[in-house]
Amino acid sequence: MKLAAGSVGTVETRILDLPGPVPLDCGRALSPVRVAYETYGTLSPARDNAILVCHALSGDAHAAGTSATPTGTRDGFAARGGRNLGWWDGMIGPGKAFDTDHFFVVAANVLGGCGGTTGPSAPDPATGRPYGPDFPVVTVADMVRTERALLTALGVDRLAAVAGGSLGGMRALEWAILYPDKVDAVVAIASTHALSPQGVAWNAIAREAILRDPDWQDGRYYGTGRSPDSGMGLARMVGHITYLSAAALDGKFGRRLQFSDDIRHTLTEPEFQVENYLRHQADGFVRRFDANTYLLLSRALTYFDLARQHGGSLERAFADVTARTLLISFDSDWLYPPSGSHAIERALRALGKPVEAHVLDAPYGHDSFLLEEARQIPIVRRFLSL
Amino acid sequence: MKLAAGSVGTVETRILDLPGPVPLDCGRALSPVRVAYETYGTLSPARDNAILVCHALSGDAHAAGTSATPTGTRDGFAARGGRNLGWWDGMIGPGKAFDTDHFFVVAANVLGGCGGTTGPSAPDPATGRPYGPDFPVVTVADMVRTERALLTALGVDRLAAVAGGSLGGMRALEWAILYPDKVDAVVAIASTHALSPQGVAWNAIAREAILRDPDWQDGRYYGTGRSPDSGMGLARMVGHITYLSAAALDGKFGRRLQFSDDIRHTLTEPEFQVENYLRHQADGFVRRFDANTYLLLSRALTYFDLARQHGGSLERAFADVTARTLLISFDSDWLYPPSGSHAIERALRALGKPVEAHVLDAPYGHDSFLLEEARQIPIVRRFLSL
Repeated sequence: MKLAAGSVGTVETRILDLPGPVPLDCGRALSPVRVAYETYGTLSPARDNAILVCHALSGDAHAAGTSATPTGTRDGFAARGGRNLGWWDGMIGPGKAFDTDHFFVVAANVLGGCGGTTGPSAPDPATGRPYGPDFPVVTVADMVRTERALLTALGVDRLAAVAGGSLGGMRALEWAILYPDKVDAVVAIASTHALSPQGVAWNAIAREAILRDPDWQDGRYYGTGRSPDSGMGLARMVGHITYLSAAALDGKFGRRLQFSDDIRHTLTEPEFQVENYLRHQADGFVRRFDANTYLLLSRALTYFDLARQHGGSLERAFADVTARTLLISFDSDWLYPPSGSHAIERALRALGKPVEAHVLDAPYGHDSFLLEEARQIPIVRRFLSL
Repeated sequence: MKLAAGSVGTVETRILDLPGPVPLDCGRALSPVRVAYETYGTLSPARDNAILVCHALSGDAHAAGTSATPTGTRDGFAARGGRNLGWWDGMIGPGKAFDTDHFFVVAANVLGGCGGTTGPSAPDPATGRPYGPDFPVVTVADMVRTERALLTALGVDRLAAVAGGSLGGMRALEWAILYPDKVDAVVAIASTHALSPQGVAWNAIAREAILRDPDWQDGRYYGTGRSPDSGMGLARMVGHITYLSAAALDGKFGRRLQFSDDIRHTLTEPEFQVENYLRHQADGFVRRFDANTYLLLSRALTYFDLARQHGGSLERAFADVTARTLLISFDSDWLYPPSGSHAIERALRALGKPVEAHVLDAPYGHDSFLLEEARQIPIVRRFLSL
C-alpha cells in the first residue's frame, strides 16, 4: 500500500512543559502538564502551514519516520515491540497525504496518555507518587485544550488542518468546535460524532476486564511489581476484533488450526491460528501500554457525544464551525460505521458549511484508516489543495 | 411474540443414569454418565412421534413449561434468576411449533453441562472429587452420542425430528450425520456447519477471560469458596453483545445515560444504560452457570466443523443423511449469519437431499431464535406437516 514517497527520516520525540494549568470539563485544572510531541517539516515564516495529527487509542506522538530512540529505551515510553516506524508513516512525509514538503506536521501524545504526556502514570504533585486513579477523568475536549496549549507554546496560533482517525478524528472535530477561528480544515477519518451503543458496550467490556483484574489494585499498581496485564490483554483482544472486519479475519486466518490438521482437545492452548494471533497481540500490547491510560482514553471516547454536549443537537454543535471538513469512512468498519460520518455530513450541509465525504470500500474494517493509505492519500492531498 | 397457545404446564427435570460408558472423540470413554432431561407430550404406542430439542450454550433440560422445583433449590441446578419458564417455552407446547398434542418432546442437558447432566462439576469416580479440568474435552458428536443413549434408555429408537438453535442446531445436524437411519427431520435454527473465524475469536476471548481469572485455579475451584465469577461475567458480556444486533442495542438502550442528563466523569461506575445492563447480565449468569462447563461448551462449538470432520467436504459430511432438513436463519444474526445456512443448503441440494431454508428479517441478531417465535412457529409446523 505504501506509495513511492519519502520518509521524514529519523525523528526524536520532544517534551514540552506547558506554562499553565489545563482546565478540565470535570471542573478541576491539571498542573503541571508536560506534552510529548514530534514535528515533521518546517513551519513557514507566516506560521500558516501547521497541521496537527491526532492519534487513536493506542497511538502516541511518534506518528512518522523512524524513532531516534532505540526500542525499549525511549524515555517515558514502554517498549514498542520492535516497531520504530511512526503509526501513520504511510500518510505523513514528502509527497504523502500530509506532505512535509508543504506542511509543518505536529503529532502529540494525548492528555492522559502513557507516551510521554502527563497521564495517570505521571507523578501527582500532591503526593509525589503516580496519580493512578486520582488522575482526572479527562474528555476529548480536555485533550484538545492540551493540544491547543502545546501549539501556542510552539508559536502556532492557527492550524491549516487538524486530522486524525477514530479517537483522533473526534479530537479533530472537537478542535473545529472549540476553536472555530483557529482551524482552516478538519480531516476526520473512520470517526464519529458519538460512538454507537454497541461500541459503548465493547469499550465497557474492555474496561471491565482491567477493573476486574486483581492486579489493577484500584489503579495503584505502579511500583508494586504487579500490573493488570491479564485484564489489559483481554481488553486488547476485544479491541482487535472490533477493529477488523469479519471478512478480514476470514481472509487472514480462516478456520486454520495452529499446529496440525486435527484438533488436540485442549481448553487452555490456542488451537486456531486466530486464537494464537489474539494472544500475541495482547502480549505485545501490555508491554507498551499503561492500563490506567487505557481506561481513561476508552472512557473519553465513549463519553464523546457532540449532540449531547450541545443541547441534543448536532447542528447546534457545528453552528460556529468555519473549517472545511473532509470525512472518510470505510464500508467494512462496523465499530465506526459510515453512518457516523453521514450524520456529521448532514448536519454540516444543513448549516451550509463546506464538507466533503467519502466512503471507501476497504476490506479491513476500522483498521482501514491505518492500512488503506493508497486510497486515502489522493483524497486528502486534493482536499488540502496539493 | 407469544401465540395464544397452551403451556405444557408444570414439569419436573428427571435424571437418568446411562447403562454404559459414552465413547468420546478424544479416545476416552466416560462412565458413569447421568443425563438430566424433561419430556412434554406423550410417546405414541408406535414410538414414532419423538422430537429431541437441543439447547444452546447457556440452556439446560428445562425447555418448556414451568419448573416444578422452585428457583434456586432445584437439585443440581444453580439459581435461575427468577425465571422458571423453559428457555424455548414459546416454541414447545399444545398448538406451538413443537406441538405436544402430536409429539413427544424430549429436552436434555448436554454432556459436560451444569444443569444435572454429568459435567466437570460432577464427581470423578477416580478421585471422588469434581472432575474440574480432568473432565474430557467433549465434542458436539460426543454430546449427540449421549443424547442417543438417553433416548435408547427411554425406549425411543427413532426421532421424528431433532431440533435446536445455535449449538443446539449443530447437534441437530450432527444427529442426522451420525445416525442417518434414526432421524426423519432436522430443524437447525441460527446455526452453522462451522463457526466463522470471528465467532472463534469471540469464543477464545470469552474462554481467556475465565482462564485468566485467578479464582479459576486451573479449574479446581470447587469447594474452595472461590470461583471465577469475574472472568465468567466478562465471558457472558462478550457473549451477550455478540448475540444481539447493533440495531437492537441501539433501539433498546441508545446512548442513554444511567442516572442523569450529564456524565459524572467516572471510570469505575456504569454510566450508560447499556453498561449497567451488561453488568446485570453478567451477575445473573454467574449465579447459575459453571465456568468449566462454559469453557467446554465454548470449545466444542468452535471445534465443530462438519467439513473438517469429513475430509474437508461438506457434501461428504452430508452424503449419508436421509432426514429432511429445515434451516432458519436471521438476517441480523452476525454471529451465526445466514451464510452458514446457505452453505448447508447448497451442499444438501447438490446431493439431492430435501432441504428448506428461510432467512427471516428479524431485528434481534442471534437471539432471534429465542425471541422471534411467532415467525418461526408456522414455518416449523408446516415443515412437520401439522
